[in-house]
Amino acid sequence: MHASKYHINTLKEAPAEAEIKSHQLMTRAGMIRKAAGGIYTYMPMGLKVLRKIEAIVRDEMNKAQAIELLMPVVQPAELWVESGRWEQYGAELLRIKDRHNRDFVLQPTSEEVITDIARNEIHSWRQLPLNFYHIQTKFRDERRPRFGLMRGREFTMKDAYSFDRDEASAQASYDTMFDAYMRIFARLGLEFRAVAADTGSIGGSRSHEFQVIADTGEDLIVYNPASPYAANLELAEAPCLLAERGSATEPLTKTATPDAPKCEIVAEQLKRPLTDTVKSIVLATGFEGKPEETRIWLLLLRGDHELNEVKTGKLAGFENGYRFATEDEILATFGCVPGYLGPINPVKPITVIADRTVAHMSNFICGANELGFHYTGANWGRDLPEPQVCDLRNVVSGDPDPQGGHLALQRGIEVGHVFFLGDKYSKALGATFLEKDGKPAMLQMGCYGIGISRIAAAAIEQNHDDRGIIWPLAIAPFDVVICPMGLQKSETVRNASELLYQQLRAEGIDVILDDRDTRPGIMFADWELIGVPLRITIGDRGLNENIVEIQARRDESAAKVPVEQALDFILERIKTL
Amino acid sequence: MHASKYHINTLKEAPAEAEIKSHQLMTRAGMIRKAAGGIYTYMPMGLKVLRKIEAIVRDEMNKAQAIELLMPVVQPAELWVESGRWEQYGAELLRIKDRHNRDFVLQPTSEEVITDIARNEIHSWRQLPLNFYHIQTKFRDERRPRFGLMRGREFTMKDAYSFDRDEASAQASYDTMFDAYMRIFARLGLEFRAVAADTGSIGGSRSHEFQVIADTGEDLIVYNPASPYAANLELAEAPCLLAERGSATEPLTKTATPDAPKCEIVAEQLKRPLTDTVKSIVLATGFEGKPEETRIWLLLLRGDHELNEVKTGKLAGFENGYRFATEDEILATFGCVPGYLGPINPVKPITVIADRTVAHMSNFICGANELGFHYTGANWGRDLPEPQVCDLRNVVSGDPDPQGGHLALQRGIEVGHVFFLGDKYSKALGATFLEKDGKPAMLQMGCYGIGISRIAAAAIEQNHDDRGIIWPLAIAPFDVVICPMGLQKSETVRNASELLYQQLRAEGIDVILDDRDTRPGIMFADWELIGVPLRITIGDRGLNENIVEIQARRDESAAKVPVEQALDFILERIKTL
Repeated sequence: MHASKYHINTLKEAPAEAEIKSHQLMTRAGMIRKAAGGIYTYMPMGLKVLRKIEAIVRDEMNKAQAIELLMPVVQPAELWVESGRWEQYGAELLRIKDRHNRDFVLQPTSEEVITDIARNEIHSWRQLPLNFYHIQTKFRDERRPRFGLMRGREFTMKDAYSFDRDEASAQASYDTMFDAYMRIFARLGLEFRAVAADTGSIGGSRSHEFQVIADTGEDLIVYNPASPYAANLELAEAPCLLAERGSATEPLTKTATPDAPKCEIVAEQLKRPLTDTVKSIVLATGFEGKPEETRIWLLLLRGDHELNEVKTGKLAGFENGYRFATEDEILATFGCVPGYLGPINPVKPITVIADRTVAHMSNFICGANELGFHYTGANWGRDLPEPQVCDLRNVVSGDPDPQGGHLALQRGIEVGHVFFLGDKYSKALGATFLEKDGKPAMLQMGCYGIGISRIAAAAIEQNHDDRGIIWPLAIAPFDVVICPMGLQKSETVRNASELLYQQLRAEGIDVILDDRDTRPGIMFADWELIGVPLRITIGDRGLNENIVEIQARRDESAAKVPVEQALDFILERIKTL
Repeated sequence: MHASKYHINTLKEAPAEAEIKSHQLMTRAGMIRKAAGGIYTYMPMGLKVLRKIEAIVRDEMNKAQAIELLMPVVQPAELWVESGRWEQYGAELLRIKDRHNRDFVLQPTSEEVITDIARNEIHSWRQLPLNFYHIQTKFRDERRPRFGLMRGREFTMKDAYSFDRDEASAQASYDTMFDAYMRIFARLGLEFRAVAADTGSIGGSRSHEFQVIADTGEDLIVYNPASPYAANLELAEAPCLLAERGSATEPLTKTATPDAPKCEIVAEQLKRPLTDTVKSIVLATGFEGKPEETRIWLLLLRGDHELNEVKTGKLAGFENGYRFATEDEILATFGCVPGYLGPINPVKPITVIADRTVAHMSNFICGANELGFHYTGANWGRDLPEPQVCDLRNVVSGDPDPQGGHLALQRGIEVGHVFFLGDKYSKALGATFLEKDGKPAMLQMGCYGIGISRIAAAAIEQNHDDRGIIWPLAIAPFDVVICPMGLQKSETVRNASELLYQQLRAEGIDVILDDRDTRPGIMFADWELIGVPLRITIGDRGLNENIVEIQARRDESAAKVPVEQALDFILERIKTL
């Protein structure tokens, strides 16, 4: 590619609405242009990045025996009614009517259409397992689209759907996809983690997210630097931090703690470590304002810990949801305002659930259910009944991993997700096959998504500096850019540049020759912004000394390489990028 | 590819609604499955065909210096309001509202979005010429979608848009695209013609259609077998068939022609050739029922010729449309009912327009404006005033080409279209650039479409037989299929098949090994239906004689080739397909 025959249009400023680096840099580098909120045109270099991502995904999917097809963007509502999602899916599902007033949706995902295909195409156990995928335009009508490709409305997704005879075989299909995803993200050149995840609203009982590590990520990942373990913070099991409960050595003492509605203040007033305090969180189930249906729960966490709302939602009795208790409900139950609540002698009976660590604490400090007072020296069994014990808290950095080592936290961007669906969709749509014994059986399904366009944004969040994007080689718009200095004036420069360009092309390198004849400063700034991994500078001054300069985007300085060694040097250097 | 790891599902019967061969065969071969009216899933082999077509189109577009990008499927209504097409486009434009009640369209084509990009990206004459294209999902809400991929609602189109400084440069861009299209359709392996075409509603003043020749095509093409000339019947100029007008030798004679309201019957009654008769067609302009605004026109064609309605629509005075006159209007104007009308002495004055050939006729036969009577011996100048002369008729097979030779007719399927748009869209959206002299100028545009998915259907309409599809090699789902006989039973067959499979793959041949172990009859029928160009049969009987059978899909019989020569034979044979 010669830059003069291409379209390169970098911008000095990002649009004001671009809040995150990837949005700013992709716009400034001329890779995307906004058509409407959350809807973008992929400009030539942006599309090149997208296609390189797609090619790696496609290659690994094919190697994993998944079969590519292409389902439509516009899908009939009937199938969504059958699955129940026509009702369940919120406003993100864009519903449309055709000229005959028939209902359709713009696909946010394709479980319905693929299950419809499966029920028509799969007749016998002999056809199984099968895994179909497509790479297609998706639409989710986000309420507030933003962050460029990170949370767009129209985007490109790879979604695969596996069909199996039974759960064991479905698990094998899941594992095959898991392994393919590990290879895909490794080939993309991204630092990532496979993270055990909550299955959320899509259903199913087994799920992993693939997270690209980036400080700007929305998700928190718990991992063990010394093991492959990683889980979404929502799901990560928090260990009990006390091997066993200590003896009850202190007497239960009501102590004045004026103006101390928080554990941090109590600990400071009493000159005790925060880890000696217990935090009371009062929740309610049942409708607010209907006391006869309401049940009050007291959840206890160590003073330095945070409640995990996903784990809380899974507690027995919380199946229909929960809420924080109102002040009226708290006053009626504890005879005291929030800030001084505790498990000892409430006014009305409550269910107390202690986090694992709290259950092993002794001589602890908790609210005395009296304004301005806390108890010290509280002990389970002696001062109050043994509690129900559950994992209630978020993991914190440094928590021991029961398998050895310690846990750490980092932020990530979800770019892939694998789910075991079971028979959720096959049951809804009646997708059966004939088993070996001649009897019909439900297809067991899994689904496997990769956000193709989001990967481009995530790669930038992970890889950029003040000057611009730093693409991993595998998904860079070009592998190499040749920057000739004074192309128009110097035939020597022109010939040397063109020769190296042809040599690199012949080696299969994706190279662009910047023959726009702009000033070096502008040219370098453009390519640093665009983020091409390797830049070759060819000028008269260097050629007089038989030298070209080879600069990796991440490096501080350029290598000066004799002209006749440049090709080999580049081919070697590129392997290490 | 091994068939056992793939999804092949052929059907004995096509769906009742499938009216044309390509729809029937693509469904029976398992290449498409209907999701809704005019909306299809491309099954694995159908998608392979689509991708091969796309790859050829992309390669030639890139070679022609067009730059690929990707515009969105969902486009904001604002741009369509700006261009005027929000109002002009009929019900085929699917209009949708997002959750915030904002208007969008599903793109049927992308003039608006690309012109919006151009006005933001193109600042200077130095950036021109530019040609952007994308290959993207389109949607046209056809009133009655049918014929499978031939007239679907959701389909894949390549659309390119060129931007130039002036008309001369735009013409060069148009020519570059024209040449690229000639190469594309040649590489696709299709018999086609580039046909001068009417510009229709999209506007612009220069236009060619690319038509795949097929008896089932909807379009009629006029061509000269001895020259490159071809034009859509709508546009093809019909020559005058009489070099000069003959002398008026017969007297004008009113002749009884009872029950002869058609030229054919008149000619028979009078024992004169049909080519001596003149047909009267009465048209009206202005609103029906408003006589003061209505004007009556008499168009004259030779008895054996047909009116061309596109040419008629372009007559001076027909700018606001025309209609056939009502019987009341005819009676009031001619004093006679249809069937016996003519240009001589109507009751009221009319404008007579004669087709070129009619204007050179002498001693002709026409209606006498009296029930049951015609004139013979009618002559221009003598019996009636000289008429206005225009080209009014459709070309018929055998018409002389003024450039030499004769014209012929054939049917075609439109699969590509190139248009010169001028400044239609750049004017509407204010897409200007700065000329060399520093003054703003309008971008001159062209647009260039190829119906990717329609090509698959057109290829089948052109290439099929009773047994199924006969794909051109370039777009076949597989180049070669290996059919082993009794794979499970014979290790020899298994090994020989697998070896040849690996050898062909190593040569870059797209080969599938049918290891499903079905009966030979079923296997052969499947692959003849699917239309793979070359089939290799390997069985114990043949191997005992050191023979494999190589059958080209179009051939009557198979070649018997020694095992060790099979690879070379296939590689040679494939070049000729």
